[in-house]
Amino acid sequence: MFKENLIKIKGFKGNGIHSKVKYKKLDLGIVYSEKPCIAAGVFTKNKTCAAPVKISKINIKNPINAIIINSGNANACTGKEGHDNALNMCKQTSKNLGINPENVLIASTGIIGKQLPMDKISSGIDEIVKDINYDNFNLLPEAIKTTDKTDKICSSEFQIGNHTIKINGFAKGSGMIHPNMATTLGFITTNVNISKSLLQKLLTELADVTFNMISVDGDTSTNDTIIALSNQSAENEKITSPDSISYLKFKKHLHEVLQNLAIMVVKDGEGATKLLTVTLKGARTKNDAKKQAKSIITSSLVKSAFFGEDVNWGRIVCSLGNSLSSFDPNKVFLSFKANNKEIILMKNGEPKEYRKEIAEEIMSSDEIEIYVNVNLGNYSAKSWGCDLSYDYVKINASYS
Amino acid sequence: MFKENLIKIKGFKGNGIHSKVKYKKLDLGIVYSEKPCIAAGVFTKNKTCAAPVKISKINIKNPINAIIINSGNANACTGKEGHDNALNMCKQTSKNLGINPENVLIASTGIIGKQLPMDKISSGIDEIVKDINYDNFNLLPEAIKTTDKTDKICSSEFQIGNHTIKINGFAKGSGMIHPNMATTLGFITTNVNISKSLLQKLLTELADVTFNMISVDGDTSTNDTIIALSNQSAENEKITSPDSISYLKFKKHLHEVLQNLAIMVVKDGEGATKLLTVTLKGARTKNDAKKQAKSIITSSLVKSAFFGEDVNWGRIVCSLGNSLSSFDPNKVFLSFKANNKEIILMKNGEPKEYRKEIAEEIMSSDEIEIYVNVNLGNYSAKSWGCDLSYDYVKINASYS
Repeated sequence: MFKENLIKIKGFKGNGIHSKVKYKKLDLGIVYSEKPCIAAGVFTKNKTCAAPVKISKINIKNPINAIIINSGNANACTGKEGHDNALNMCKQTSKNLGINPENVLIASTGIIGKQLPMDKISSGIDEIVKDINYDNFNLLPEAIKTTDKTDKICSSEFQIGNHTIKINGFAKGSGMIHPNMATTLGFITTNVNISKSLLQKLLTELADVTFNMISVDGDTSTNDTIIALSNQSAENEKITSPDSISYLKFKKHLHEVLQNLAIMVVKDGEGATKLLTVTLKGARTKNDAKKQAKSIITSSLVKSAFFGEDVNWGRIVCSLGNSLSSFDPNKVFLSFKANNKEIILMKNGEPKEYRKEIAEEIMSSDEIEIYVNVNLGNYSAKSWGCDLSYDYVKINASYS
Repeated sequence: MFKENLIKIKGFKGNGIHSKVKYKKLDLGIVYSEKPCIAAGVFTKNKTCAAPVKISKINIKNPINAIIINSGNANACTGKEGHDNALNMCKQTSKNLGINPENVLIASTGIIGKQLPMDKISSGIDEIVKDINYDNFNLLPEAIKTTDKTDKICSSEFQIGNHTIKINGFAKGSGMIHPNMATTLGFITTNVNISKSLLQKLLTELADVTFNMISVDGDTSTNDTIIALSNQSAENEKITSPDSISYLKFKKHLHEVLQNLAIMVVKDGEGATKLLTVTLKGARTKNDAKKQAKSIITSSLVKSAFFGEDVNWGRIVCSLGNSLSSFDPNKVFLSFKANNKEIILMKNGEPKEYRKEIAEEIMSSDEIEIYVNVNLGNYSAKSWGCDLSYDYVKINASYS
């Protein structure tokens, strides 16, 4: 269904270069569409949002031809000078491409509180536009990385009627606990013919259950951005209703692409050795379900609990108690699952005996599911995280 | 004014023993008062609160003669059996002391989700009552520790009129990121003559600006408890008004004791090498001030930011933006202070140049103040934390 490589979507070209903001690696990328695209975006809710976020939030209302993205410097907490620099990046990009600055989106990631080295960025923008083509689109996932070890790429291709719909997605996360740079950027390009309002609705809805349900370190970055562009060239009948079959089909594929990218971000956490998935059932409201699933995966003590020989499941019930939602510890069902094995740890709020050898097998797995039913209603949610703490707890534990 | 040792307060005796719940160290303590005391308490807000917390919340309404405290097992997430065990601890303690179970408070700390080994606890309670005396009160700070490296003790002695008022305080914190055991317990004994309602008012108010303003790892434990007992034997005129001079005097000393204990907890964080104090000024409301000060000190990225050569102050503005309070990044004043030196990092939302050599001196200090004025109003707050992340970021950084 989906692939971990980018596919060619007619009309979407790109490039990635080394503008020397970083010491060695690619640090400037451009997404370019021949046709003006409809655009949708979700942005950080942090009140300290970076200059590029402010500008993209305005420009996203317009038809979009290009996204200029730099890594190595977030252009956040940089005051008026930073804002002018971001505007100038859009201006220079648009001038080189023969379009208007209002038709350019911008995203930055990297250190915050430092002004962009505009000489380097400016030379970079002049250089990057020279080689915009289909092949160089593949340089983008590398160009947007900061401390990421892996490229995060996912694509999907499917039919709506006789028309082939294509979705490309690439993203960056962050070294988990690295102090400077922890921003999530995600970019989607597609050829689907859909109304702008529906694309925005879809992106908001799906980001909420994918990227918004992973935990890196509990902080929301100044620069978090996910953008979707569609050049609408697939020639399918325009999707205008959220009840249509074609809408649901596109939603399913976009969901899969976004969820895969989000999980790739989590898996690439610094020191991460395990993928933890929380399945939360039985919440009283949708919002409670999300809060509870998120509370579990955000708790560093829960993440730490996966270290060592003990199955420290009590931390999960503790984090649920902290989640500011409807919750009764006496009703909880809790189990851990991996490799088709399961240990039940709590039922109706009472701790349960479990088999040590099965617990050991589960705890040593690479991917573990934390399954919780709070038994108060019919709502559910999923969240994803990693055992960020595995390494540092291990190291700290060996001190004493 | 205050001392880092316990003082003798007539009528308050105690003991601490090794009941063998832990391998070697003291793990059971008792506070005993000949006279029934008025009692005040603040308890965890976690909905998953432990059995001893539930019982103490009820018994605190009664006159109190004893507090039984065990370490090594938190008796949390232990269902009905755990609740019965906690009740039995109170019953056995009261029986041995010739009092009623309702006049006993109970606190536990340690691993959660495991039943107490009641055979050991029960023998321990029989043993501990045999040697309750003034000297053995000094064993209590040791007996309540889990992964704490230091005893946390603070006392104060002062006059109200001709009467000597004494306050003893002792507390435990936790190894910062240790997965099993992270609970704050604090105990105050005093001879002040005060009304029960005012003692409770004071404790609630002061816990809110001391223990509630430190950050360990963002999780609220199932067992957090602070208890104050007064045997009212100082013979000062009974304090019944929050406007009286004697009330304000007692408040000042109790504040100091609680603040010192809270800071001791922070300083003893695993891997902690620095004490970070946040001074937050200019908030629009009292609640905003607390949220903002707490948000800064809770952010693991802020704590991490003190690692390395860079002054990563942007993370602080970022955490303020996440604090769900009135905040305008364009008005922020931010500086770091240590050893009477200061570097100004942001003014009216614009980054400022600072002198590298002063920055280095400040960043290498043991105690650093993060000074923020959000310039929206007249409210202020303080919070305390440690560079928990110093070690783990260092270790993680050296991996790549």
